[in-house]
Amino acid sequence: MSLTRIHNLSISLDGFATGEPQSEEAPFGHAGERLHQWMFATRFWDSGGSAGVDDAFAERHERGIGAEIMGANKFGPPGWQDDASWQGWWGPSPPFHTPTFVLTHRPRPPVEMEGGTTFHFLDASPAEALEAAGAAADSQDVRIGGGASVVRDFLAAGLVDHMHLVQVPIVLGRGVRIWDGLEALEEDYDIEAVSSPSGVTHLTFTRG
Amino acid sequence: MSLTRIHNLSISLDGFATGEPQSEEAPFGHAGERLHQWMFATRFWDSGGSAGVDDAFAERHERGIGAEIMGANKFGPPGWQDDASWQGWWGPSPPFHTPTFVLTHRPRPPVEMEGGTTFHFLDASPAEALEAAGAAADSQDVRIGGGASVVRDFLAAGLVDHMHLVQVPIVLGRGVRIWDGLEALEEDYDIEAVSSPSGVTHLTFTRG
Repeated sequence: MSLTRIHNLSISLDGFATGEPQSEEAPFGHAGERLHQWMFATRFWDSGGSAGVDDAFAERHERGIGAEIMGANKFGPPGWQDDASWQGWWGPSPPFHTPTFVLTHRPRPPVEMEGGTTFHFLDASPAEALEAAGAAADSQDVRIGGGASVVRDFLAAGLVDHMHLVQVPIVLGRGVRIWDGLEALEEDYDIEAVSSPSGVTHLTFTRG
Repeated sequence: MSLTRIHNLSISLDGFATGEPQSEEAPFGHAGERLHQWMFATRFWDSGGSAGVDDAFAERHERGIGAEIMGANKFGPPGWQDDASWQGWWGPSPPFHTPTFVLTHRPRPPVEMEGGTTFHFLDASPAEALEAAGAAADSQDVRIGGGASVVRDFLAAGLVDHMHLVQVPIVLGRGVRIWDGLEALEEDYDIEAVSSPSGVTHLTFTRG
């Protein structure tokens, strides 16, 4: 059966998956790239990187995924909807390599990129988006790609089978927090924590 | 040199050190005792308990401490100031065994309990309270005993040398959060995380 999965979602100690304000120059606001340094140091990201526990988690991002769903705030900076030429942050060959569904209240026609990524734009509820992505995923799993508010919406709707968070030892103080509105989330999941020598802690949530 | 230390402060994944509402029947509100189960299973708490990593951290609570400072919300339920006979939650022989300073806007005369605990009541800033506790600590360290808002005040004032947090894999959703107002706390501390087989993650903050 096809699963809905979240991978490599990095958060601060205080639960923020991005800082503020977000802009084209600073996609993660005052967080910069501090939430993602752990990943840049893995072999998944850089062939000269580490192959330890951080890498073991990181590389699962790709495996068995047939489609991604992402929020408007992941696809572009505030206001990208006003720029008809905006095709995401990732250049002509985005790293998704699957149908990729962008949730936005202002949908536009699909865009086929190089390397197997096609962006589809949907104004839809989490359940509707998951139905569309599941149909496009060729019996493989669907990844919820973020950002934090989209992840929260899918969790609140009970639609997530597996979630991998990476807690980075910084206190951001402001931004978009993953935890709001998720009281008692632990009742639906087996939760495991493992700290890495890099300083981050991997948290996995597996539907019980 | 005498240090200011915090030990065994348990928080949820979303950073709450207590739930709500707090009352005499439910000192931690809807959190109940779920934040502290890890400690009840240690030898520090129960002679039949585990002597692993949870115990190694837990027992440091006592060692080298000459005084404690706690907030009004730790000393009693809302409204205890109106009850002249209230002497804390802990019965005639509280587990502090040192001078113990209770921060309250309505101070009362000191109360000497059995076993070495004397409660002093202070309406004071964190720095003033630390000066009083330090003078009473007989050259030993001062523990900031909580709750969350008192810990936050001492951290924000830059007065904490060592902090040990225990992150428990539950999402409380509401209560008193440890992290608010502490942006960039990591700049002042070396932070280490270690996950325990019990499921909790120990976070230590050591002034760099």
